[in-house]
This record gives sequence, C-alpha cells and structure tokens, in this order.
Amino acid sequence: MPEFSPGLEGVVAAETAVSEVDGANGRLIYRGGYLIEDLAAVATFEETAYLLWNGKLPNKAELEALRRQMGAARKLKSTANGVLSSMDAATDPMDTLRTVISAQGATKTLTKPTLDEAIALTAVVPTIVAAAHRRAKGAEPVEPRDDLGHAANLLWMMEGAEAAPDRVHWLDTYLVLLADHGLNASTFTARVIASTGSDLTSCTVGAIAALKGPAHGGATYAARTMLDKIGSADNADQWLRDAHAQHARFPGFGHRVYRTYDPRAKILREMAKTAAPELYTTAAHTEEVALQILHEAHPERPNATNVDFWASVVLTGVGIPKELFTCLFATSRIAGWTAHVLESMADLRIIRPASVWKGPQPGSKPLPIGSR
Amino acid sequence: MPEFSPGLEGVVAAETAVSEVDGANGRLIYRGGYLIEDLAAVATFEETAYLLWNGKLPNKAELEALRRQMGAARKLKSTANGVLSSMDAATDPMDTLRTVISAQGATKTLTKPTLDEAIALTAVVPTIVAAAHRRAKGAEPVEPRDDLGHAANLLWMMEGAEAAPDRVHWLDTYLVLLADHGLNASTFTARVIASTGSDLTSCTVGAIAALKGPAHGGATYAARTMLDKIGSADNADQWLRDAHAQHARFPGFGHRVYRTYDPRAKILREMAKTAAPELYTTAAHTEEVALQILHEAHPERPNATNVDFWASVVLTGVGIPKELFTCLFATSRIAGWTAHVLESMADLRIIRPASVWKGPQPGSKPLPIGSR
Repeated sequence: MPEFSPGLEGVVAAETAVSEVDGANGRLIYRGGYLIEDLAAVATFEETAYLLWNGKLPNKAELEALRRQMGAARKLKSTANGVLSSMDAATDPMDTLRTVISAQGATKTLTKPTLDEAIALTAVVPTIVAAAHRRAKGAEPVEPRDDLGHAANLLWMMEGAEAAPDRVHWLDTYLVLLADHGLNASTFTARVIASTGSDLTSCTVGAIAALKGPAHGGATYAARTMLDKIGSADNADQWLRDAHAQHARFPGFGHRVYRTYDPRAKILREMAKTAAPELYTTAAHTEEVALQILHEAHPERPNATNVDFWASVVLTGVGIPKELFTCLFATSRIAGWTAHVLESMADLRIIRPASVWKGPQPGSKPLPIGSR
Repeated sequence: MPEFSPGLEGVVAAETAVSEVDGANGRLIYRGGYLIEDLAAVATFEETAYLLWNGKLPNKAELEALRRQMGAARKLKSTANGVLSSMDAATDPMDTLRTVISAQGATKTLTKPTLDEAIALTAVVPTIVAAAHRRAKGAEPVEPRDDLGHAANLLWMMEGAEAAPDRVHWLDTYLVLLADHGLNASTFTARVIASTGSDLTSCTVGAIAALKGPAHGGATYAARTMLDKIGSADNADQWLRDAHAQHARFPGFGHRVYRTYDPRAKILREMAKTAAPELYTTAAHTEEVALQILHEAHPERPNATNVDFWASVVLTGVGIPKELFTCLFATSRIAGWTAHVLESMADLRIIRPASVWKGPQPGSKPLPIGSR
C-alpha cells in the first residue's frame, strides 16, 4: 500500500489540458497555452468560457453564436422558479444556488454531459445569484436581458439598472481570472462525480457544495471580513499582530500550489487601485504587514498573497456585497467545472481511492445487541 | 511528480475507522471491527447507523433515544415541502432527492457538521423518496409516522399501509448491508466537500450527485434492467452470450476492490430465495452463465458477483420499483457518508490533488481576439 498523502497533496488525479497551475513559476496557463495575464488583458468571460470548453478562442461568428445561446438560456424553468420562490429569502445564497441549479438541471432520465448543457448551466447561474440577492433585500427579482454580456447582465439583474462600463469591465476581468485553476477541490469534486457516469447538473451541484467551504471559495468572503475588522490602514499592524498571537489564520494568504505571488492576485491588485481606492489603501497595508508577520513566523514558507485577498477588494469595488462573493466565484468557476467534466468524458474511469483501516480487526466478541 | 493512477486506484485518500473493504479476503468490516455478516444477522439500520456514527453499538436506552430523534425528524420543513411541490412529478427521483435534501438542509449561515444534523438528514431521506414515488404515481404523499422503524416507515409512506414484517426485515437488512463501504466514489465526494470546511448538507448533496452514476449507485437499476431483458432462466444463456459478443458489460459483476465473492451479495443472494423466488431462479441462472462467460473471456480477472446484482433481486422482493433503487441506496449510504464527514472533521485538510498538463506551453503567439 503506498504512503498516505493527506489532502492528496502531490498525488496526480488527472491529466488535463483545461488549465495548469505552474506553482513554482507563478504561472496560470489556460487551455491552448495562454498565460492568464495575456488572456485577461483582452478576453471577456464568454471568450474565456468558449476557450475552456472548446480548446480554442472563438472567431467573431462563434462568439456571437455563444452570446446568443447564453442570452437565450438565462431564464429559469418554471419548476426552478417555483423552487426559488419556496426558499427562505434569508437563506445563504450558496445554498439557494445549490438548490435552484439542482432543480434547473433536473431531468426525467439520466443524460450524458454535453456542451449545450454546460452553456445553459453557466448562463443561468447569474439569474439565480441575482434573484437570491434581491429576495434577501425584499425586492422582486429582475428578468435577465439577452442583449447584455454575461457580466453586464448580472449587474443589471442585481440592480435593475445598467451598470457603468468600468464596473462591468472589473467584474468581467474577475470572471476571466477565476474561471479555472487546475484540480482545485470543487473541480476535483465535479470530476469525481462525473467519473461515476452521473449527469452534468450533479457534477455542478457537487462543485458548488465544495466551493462553499471557507478553505476554498469561501475565502474571499473571509478576506473581506478581515479587512472590515481591520477597518483602516493605521489599524492593520495592531490587529494583525493580535490575531497572529491568537493563532488566527489570515484569509487570502498562502496557497497549496503557488510558491510565488499568485498571477491573478497581481492583476486584481492593480485593478483594485481604481476599482476600490479607499479599500485598496487598507488592503495594501494589510498585505504588507501580513506578509511580514507570516515571514517572521515561518521564513521557510512561501506565504504569498493569493487570489482571494485581492478579489475581495475588486468585488467590493464592483459593488458586490460580500455575502455574494462565493456565489460570484461559482459564477466564474462553473466554466472550468463543466470544461473539466466534458474533458473527462473521453476516458471515464470511476474515481475510487483506497483507505487505510484505523479500526480494530474483527474478533470473536459477541454482538452486544438483541433487538431482533 | 508521482505516477498517474487513473481512478486513483490504490491511492490512499484517507485513514478511517468507519469501514474497511478487505477485498483480498472478501470481508467488509464495519466500525468497531464487526464483520458485515455478523452485524446483518442481528442489527437494524438504526443500530448500524448508530455504530457508524458513534463507534459503538447502542444500548437499549441509546437506541430508543435515536429512534425517537429520527422519528421526530422525518417531516420536511415547509420550505423543503414547497420545493418538493414545485418539482415536476416525472423527475428522476434522484434529482428530486438531490434538490429537496439541498433545500431541507439550507441554512442562513455556514454550520459545522454535527451528529444531530447527520441524524436529521438520514431520518428525512425516506420522506423525500416516498413522496417522489407517490407523486410520480399521481398520488398524494403520505405523512411519516414516528412510531415505526426506519424501514417500516419508508414502506408505510410509499404505500399508505403497514408492510408485512418479512418485507420490512428484508429492506432493513438491505439498509444495514449498504450503509458503508470504504472510500467508494460518493463517500469520497462527501469527504472532498467536507475538506473545504463546507457544511454537512453540501457533503450529502454532493454524495447523492455521485451515487447517481450508473458506475456507482445506478448499477442496481442496471442489474435489474438486465434481468428484465433476460426475462427467464432459459433465455439467460443466449441473451448473455449475444450481449457479450456486442461488448456489453454485465451490471452487477466485478468490483474495484473485491477479489472474491462480495460478502453482501452472499447475504442478499440467500435472502432473495424467499424474498423473490421467481426472480431468484432467473437471477441465479444469469449469475452462473455470466460468471462463466466472464471467466472464459478473462480467466485472470476475479469477476465475482457484486452487491448490485443481488440487491436488485431483494429490492424487487421488497416491492420497490426499480426507478427507486438508487434512492434506496442513498437511504442507506447516507449513514456512511455522514459518519465519514464527522470522522474527517478531526483533522481537516483540503483535498486538492495535482494534475499533469497535457496542453501546449505558453508561446509568443498573439491572441486571436479583439473584442475590447
């Protein structure tokens, strides 16, 4: 029996051409061999999703066709709408998303994952997220528009007004940056579920369930909450040193794979200067002090800032309330989840690892029950 | 980078004391060191679930307390009831279960997995399964009863009448046998989701999503469908040889871990003689011929009958329609899923494996887009 690697660290669980996290060199490569910084500078979320799904960037006609297909898939089915209306408006929006996507993708018989279904599921996530947001505020959901891009339509449905181009651009870039990231826990969950021959909605629901965790997608919310507690740049030093003394972790710092500055964090950091100048000041000072404290405590560790830290600042600049941060992550990552599932269909083999038994061996003791 | 083991075969992904599949010796050991055949001979599902959750069998008072707690947790919340009513009655019952459990366990803020929640989720699954069954028939759901055992109450809610003790006993034994099985794909899914710090409902929803696949929980349905197509014992030889010539797989045969006859299949096979005597005859002959064909084709492989094959016969004897077989599997396995999640809480580390990059390395090619 091979050695046990907790967290499956370093264990290869898939061969993939969807994305590659080159942690040693601080590079994130998207399908086709594109560096994330090159792509994020020019591509929209729709182009990025097309790339992850199809292995190449779309030409003008292909992009237009995808936009039309996504625009037409933004409405909830009447069953899913009924499910949404039945949910308590105060429910964690990730629980609402998990439930309503499950209803939206429910079918009468088992279906094999298809690209059309990937597109439909990706297109409808903002509708659920925005509706959950509005219901929590006591407002009626706003119908999706099919003439807006993915990011613009999300803000439209959240606010019932067209958002300024800057905000759309920041959000769109965020969605490009977060769309895939190797075998992270939620993507791996989707691949495990796909390996049983289950359907694409099941894979997506499981991935949403995994993303919810604070050690995964929930970290952006945690980073923003930390920044809220710190409040201002001049409070950062004291707050962080106190927290560190109490063995608190700093959300937004450290990563399983990166050994250098997360390339996505670098882009978001730059964008945060204009997107959220006030919070940027607090965040930049927080980052400086946090890295210093972490380096003092563990000089051997590469405690670099990760994507969650600066994503929390940019999303704040976009005007997204922090309660929706994990849902926004899902809005982006579903492109990667579905691309991984579609890729894995080429060679399905059930993912069924081994375990090491820690319990007692069977003995000859009588069973202490007699209920029958 | 270590070698890639497709399906994570032989890769240790957890240390566990919940159950051990000793494939080489054909033994299934439940928590505390009990052989499945010893336990199944005397324990009810409630006792088995208690054992998996707590590490010891309950005494009389503990069992009574668990029964009361489960009896009190059988009703759906009004939100989950609304969600159920919104679903199309013709929906795949696994999709209904996935959606309604997601709604039932939805909360306002993130919660840590607890034993009480494990008990509540386990208790309510039969309510959803039975309601999905009755709605598909055009009948009203039947309210759960808190004075019946887990198996008896499920049949009560499905049929609106108390089932004969034999049928309850067969179903109860099935539920004991399927309650846990090492790091199968759905249990592993639950553990991956738990590793992110997500909640117990999320873990359960993801596990249901994985169980749905025909290479996992869906295999019982597939085995029964094969038996339906074969129709009678004297048709088995011809049907199986034709199917084999067309490279069809025989559902219910072969297993990743067992190298000998599955101990659960042995118990179910014996029970099938009285539970479903007619189908038993067809199934026994089917088994004989299938094993012979598989041995001829691959004498090196241990192509033993697995639990799905005989479970499909016993569930038929219980009177469960085959459309519900995977839901019945979930009704049992949720005890194991939740026990594994609770066990994993002691030492949470995010499960985040590595991948091998199959795509091109970044080059200096210009990006073929100009949408901004």
